[in-house]
Amino acid sequence: MPSKELRIGLVGYGFMGRTHSNGYKRACDFFDLEYRPVLKAVCGRTEKRVKEFAEHWQYESWETDWKKMIARDDIDAIDICTANDTHAEIAIAAAEAGKMVLCEKPLARTTAEAEPMVAAVEKAGVKNTVWYNYRRLPAVTLAKQLIDSGKLGRIFHYRANFLQDWTISEDLPQGGEGLWRLDVAAAGSGVTGDLLAHCIDTAMWLNGGINRVTARTETFIKERKHNLTGKVEKVGIDDACLFMCDFDNGSLGLFESTRYARGHKALYTFEINGEHASIKWDLHDLNRLEYFDHRDESIVRGWRSIHVSDGDQPYMGNWWVPGLCIGYEHSFVHQVADFLKDLETGATTQPDFRNALETAKVCDAVLSSGKDGAWHDTGVKI
Amino acid sequence: MPSKELRIGLVGYGFMGRTHSNGYKRACDFFDLEYRPVLKAVCGRTEKRVKEFAEHWQYESWETDWKKMIARDDIDAIDICTANDTHAEIAIAAAEAGKMVLCEKPLARTTAEAEPMVAAVEKAGVKNTVWYNYRRLPAVTLAKQLIDSGKLGRIFHYRANFLQDWTISEDLPQGGEGLWRLDVAAAGSGVTGDLLAHCIDTAMWLNGGINRVTARTETFIKERKHNLTGKVEKVGIDDACLFMCDFDNGSLGLFESTRYARGHKALYTFEINGEHASIKWDLHDLNRLEYFDHRDESIVRGWRSIHVSDGDQPYMGNWWVPGLCIGYEHSFVHQVADFLKDLETGATTQPDFRNALETAKVCDAVLSSGKDGAWHDTGVKI
Amino acid sequence: MPSKELRIGLVGYGFMGRTHSNGYKRACDFFDLEYRPVLKAVCGRTEKRVKEFAEHWQYESWETDWKKMIARDDIDAIDICTANDTHAEIAIAAAEAGKMVLCEKPLARTTAEAEPMVAAVEKAGVKNTVWYNYRRLPAVTLAKQLIDSGKLGRIFHYRANFLQDWTISEDLPQGGEGLWRLDVAAAGSGVTGDLLAHCIDTAMWLNGGINRVTARTETFIKERKHNLTGKVEKVGIDDACLFMCDFDNGSLGLFESTRYARGHKALYTFEINGEHASIKWDLHDLNRLEYFDHRDESIVRGWRSIHVSDGDQPYMGNWWVPGLCIGYEHSFVHQVADFLKDLETGATTQPDFRNALETAKVCDAVLSSGKDGAWHDTGVKI
Amino acid sequence: MPSKELRIGLVGYGFMGRTHSNGYKRACDFFDLEYRPVLKAVCGRTEKRVKEFAEHWQYESWETDWKKMIARDDIDAIDICTANDTHAEIAIAAAEAGKMVLCEKPLARTTAEAEPMVAAVEKAGVKNTVWYNYRRLPAVTLAKQLIDSGKLGRIFHYRANFLQDWTISEDLPQGGEGLWRLDVAAAGSGVTGDLLAHCIDTAMWLNGGINRVTARTETFIKERKHNLTGKVEKVGIDDACLFMCDFDNGSLGLFESTRYARGHKALYTFEINGEHASIKWDLHDLNRLEYFDHRDESIVRGWRSIHVSDGDQPYMGNWWVPGLCIGYEHSFVHQVADFLKDLETGATTQPDFRNALETAKVCDAVLSSGKDGAWHDTGVKI
Repeated sequence: MPSKELRIGLVGYGFMGRTHSNGYKRACDFFDLEYRPVLKAVCGRTEKRVKEFAEHWQYESWETDWKKMIARDDIDAIDICTANDTHAEIAIAAAEAGKMVLCEKPLARTTAEAEPMVAAVEKAGVKNTVWYNYRRLPAVTLAKQLIDSGKLGRIFHYRANFLQDWTISEDLPQGGEGLWRLDVAAAGSGVTGDLLAHCIDTAMWLNGGINRVTARTETFIKERKHNLTGKVEKVGIDDACLFMCDFDNGSLGLFESTRYARGHKALYTFEINGEHASIKWDLHDLNRLEYFDHRDESIVRGWRSIHVSDGDQPYMGNWWVPGLCIGYEHSFVHQVADFLKDLETGATTQPDFRNALETAKVCDAVLSSGKDGAWHDTGVKI
Repeated sequence: MPSKELRIGLVGYGFMGRTHSNGYKRACDFFDLEYRPVLKAVCGRTEKRVKEFAEHWQYESWETDWKKMIARDDIDAIDICTANDTHAEIAIAAAEAGKMVLCEKPLARTTAEAEPMVAAVEKAGVKNTVWYNYRRLPAVTLAKQLIDSGKLGRIFHYRANFLQDWTISEDLPQGGEGLWRLDVAAAGSGVTGDLLAHCIDTAMWLNGGINRVTARTETFIKERKHNLTGKVEKVGIDDACLFMCDFDNGSLGLFESTRYARGHKALYTFEINGEHASIKWDLHDLNRLEYFDHRDESIVRGWRSIHVSDGDQPYMGNWWVPGLCIGYEHSFVHQVADFLKDLETGATTQPDFRNALETAKVCDAVLSSGKDGAWHDTGVKI
Repeated sequence: MPSKELRIGLVGYGFMGRTHSNGYKRACDFFDLEYRPVLKAVCGRTEKRVKEFAEHWQYESWETDWKKMIARDDIDAIDICTANDTHAEIAIAAAEAGKMVLCEKPLARTTAEAEPMVAAVEKAGVKNTVWYNYRRLPAVTLAKQLIDSGKLGRIFHYRANFLQDWTISEDLPQGGEGLWRLDVAAAGSGVTGDLLAHCIDTAMWLNGGINRVTARTETFIKERKHNLTGKVEKVGIDDACLFMCDFDNGSLGLFESTRYARGHKALYTFEINGEHASIKWDLHDLNRLEYFDHRDESIVRGWRSIHVSDGDQPYMGNWWVPGLCIGYEHSFVHQVADFLKDLETGATTQPDFRNALETAKVCDAVLSSGKDGAWHDTGVKI
Repeated sequence: MPSKELRIGLVGYGFMGRTHSNGYKRACDFFDLEYRPVLKAVCGRTEKRVKEFAEHWQYESWETDWKKMIARDDIDAIDICTANDTHAEIAIAAAEAGKMVLCEKPLARTTAEAEPMVAAVEKAGVKNTVWYNYRRLPAVTLAKQLIDSGKLGRIFHYRANFLQDWTISEDLPQGGEGLWRLDVAAAGSGVTGDLLAHCIDTAMWLNGGINRVTARTETFIKERKHNLTGKVEKVGIDDACLFMCDFDNGSLGLFESTRYARGHKALYTFEINGEHASIKWDLHDLNRLEYFDHRDESIVRGWRSIHVSDGDQPYMGNWWVPGLCIGYEHSFVHQVADFLKDLETGATTQPDFRNALETAKVCDAVLSSGKDGAWHDTGVKI
């Protein structure tokens, strides 16, 4: 039974505000933990709406100024769910105030913006993590276990896609609430920071550091009405980004993300090919892991479709019974549960800011290569 | 914002106790409702364990005698999650005490046992429902909408399976906690009441009444150690049950359930073939509905794999964004949300006891036919 | 290099005339055989058309009277591809004339009609076979090998479907060329003899004898114009047939066939569940065999999708390279190759007439049960 | 009925010699054509083996010197199935002798080697074609029809893979019969010419010219024993090749090929994303085309799995009935049938040498970029 409290102050109440809140409310129902999250306060600029969110999700209070929330004594951890351009300032202030920091991904718009964040949390010695939640879907965690166990042997190839189709219409505006991801000032980049950052985080977790990249970025729709100015403005984000890369272990990587792949809503897929075995996964069918093992008897060798829902598979012993699916939101519940468990034991919760900085480096190199077409070293050290 | 309370008293705290509790705790986070469920009390025979469950799930109190819980004034609704042989007594007492009743499926072990339950809730005029939760998975609800819209035309065939493999070992005992489903005294039947009851409920909801059946039941492992007596005893349940049937609309039905289908954990599938279109669904990939429409242009005609995760598809506007999966447990959240909404409007929440009685009639006819091999009329009136 | 000839006389030149002719022409290109088939003559009632067929497929000659063809000295084997009602007379005459007989399935319309055929070939001592070609698709043959090797252990369940949708329209007439399958006089039955006979043949080959059945047959469209009489006449065939059965090994069988399953063109599927392993197959994706083995390590256990195209898998060493598909027609090439190889060695080519008679018995029992709804013993001895 | 002959002289009798021979022997059985191919002669260096091949496949004669075969008067067309390094010399000599030329892909090892071949056939005015056979699988041809009909609208993305796993072992030697594809002198390149050439041919056929590329090539196993020298030698081919490209129509391309993707035998896949619709295809399941159309009603929108086996789909009216699969080899039968039909009408059979030269240009640019990491213009004009 949880006997201690972790008092949360949430900044931002959009889509990610909901996924995190749900994570906090559910973790202790399914995991045995010493700490129980307490929804102390939520912060947003529009009082009417932040109040509504607070009441709906049963936060004890609300604030309209995040600085005030950080200053409160009754809050242990600041969770940042705002647009990318605000992460750094809030995170640094929170760390300086001695709060733990949980920051939505990407850590920041650029490496340059992210580095002082890392420095701040490390100087303050506060627990910190970034919500690269897909690591904690059971099938993805199982992939990590299989790779670490050596089942795949030497790795030759890694490929990942994150394909969507929601911005194809020219009539979609950019900027402002719900659409800040299309506004380069708020988002920093397009699919690179929004989608590829997930793919890169998973890839380096599973397959080690990416040391150089060459990329091709494209903006298919050059101008869109801007919601904040009311004018038609140049689109600064990348609608699509493809890149090739080298991993430290000698394997080749191929990544693609776009919001112009008709028919795909959120098709995050990865595949990794090793000497002995290969693995595939797909967010649209997130409970399944595809696994091929060349050491199987040859006449019955084939891709195994593993329904990752058994009690001996990652996280699943805490949920239902074999065959019963969990969903997207469970990745956040797992991240909360792991964060709370690490709080008990003193372990670091991965990815922390320092680890997420490596992903930012790859994103930077990708965007730079998208401009000049050359191979760029990433400077990643993992 | 919920301004009213629905105070819940839960009887039983096993697997279904968890799914229902989760449903109560989450419904108001995702649906706009007037009523908020309050976890008032949970009841179980073993004090230590019911207390633990209460604390874990944040029930306000616990009881060890369900009669005492029913007698409490601070409880509006009794939720029955105990073994099948206890449903009738508890439900009737609850109804007589003026409580709403939410009963886990199957309603009872037999039609004879279920009929007084229906009479009791109807006489008392209390709101009642049975947890045939699969109706409320979005893909299944979408199937219902497509059929009701006439897209399929005249129906020719309905087929459903519910395949598992967890009881193949001869070493598995029967009876007692976690294994009462293998004990005919507690369960009433094997796969028929446990699994086929789900298939039958869905089938009659989608395709109308089943008027006659012929069945083949089998018990592959004839004797198992009984946990309650410690002795090896005859197994009284059906390990497998196959049946053919006629629907009122002239279509033919084919159903199969077993716990001896190696490789299937909880493979509930159905398919319905109409004059113009067909539909398929599978619990292992519950976010997908397969749909074939013969009216599509011939050269591009094919089964459509619909990822039921868009905002205009049933229930999904309340969750995340397109492409992001939900899971098994959401069916219970939806049933709670619908029950609360119906409480606002005064509507009946389907399936109610009367409707679930029709499923019991089919189960009875199936089990009778399993004994004599003849076709049996079901007496279903829908 | 083939040094001997097997001189073929083909009766009938419809769809099956083409599949068999193709088989004869290709077998020696891909298999090392002593005998080469020679397309000596084809026989049909309409001279213009049989001549065209002969020229197109490079038969050396044609006949319009099958009795004359049987009487020819330069023909070794009679291949029967005509409508079901003519099989018996032709086969018996051919056997009496000392010719080998290759008969398209089903052997005859009924057991009663088939028995003298068996007697005739056995009395004459002529080599004989029935074209239940699906046994010889590599994935199906592999299933047989896996079962025979004991990989599945005790069998609990067998289920098979053969689903089509081509007769849903009421405007489709019955009878005459191309449509004799809808005319009960010519076909003997509907889906039972046409489609389920395939399923039954495979099932008894893989899983042993079927000893009793109970069936439900239906004719959805009661009257159709008859092409031979020009009148609207009662439809005598079964449009759909479902049956349950017991196998000699104690497993339960479930079979369904229909021509009213919208969306399925020729969906012949089977699945077999054993104690240790299970197998699934589907004609629409005929190069794949799905295999689940419970003895796999638990965290990576899943259905394996085996692409049956490697050289160590049945027949595939004779074709291309791994990953390259073969098609439907190859089953006939394989049957020809096996027939020719058996001719070298003196082995029986299965299924022979006697074996196919057992399938006829099951069909008869199914059709009888379709009339009275009772369980019927089949009398099968395998 | 074919009344004219096309007399074939085949050079080379390896894997491709078999696929082409099969194509010649079968085309007239399934297509109505004026010309019938006659297998006049096959040529190879080893008399014993070429004789065996000739007898097996029923060639009328054999030669051990291709120059002699080209000089024969009784041959109309030379078909080149030898290693890549011999294509140019044979093709040019054949053209100069006035023979039609059918050349296995790739046209040659490099553009420089291919250009004189194009000049030779054009100067001689002889009919010519290159066996990029995958264009003629029905699902691929259907994709072409759908794109040309405008169903996809503006194209944003094209991605293709060709993944194999047959050279992972370090023990595999290079060079000589069956393994010349691993010897850079004979093959010119590794996966680029062998596999990506197919992907590029299909891509430019479906989506127009590729105007620039950037590539990453890798040789995972640096040295292998050479069969011709008996020594361990440096491996000169690319084991893997990834490239990004721009199409003339503004869409982005992503291509990958490797022989180190464990679990994939011959996984040639492509996907094309348009404004309105998308298409996917996969050689392992070659009868299926996946199609998504955004204009479908939103609640039933999904990827359609089209089983391309109906009579109104490309080539399929010449084969069996709906639902019945064809295989890999049929692509060659179709190419023969189209070549013969074009001979009747005087049409060019695509891809001809000039068209295949454009694919060679892309391969060259890819290999150059693999060396320097820069973007390279291809010079393609389509």
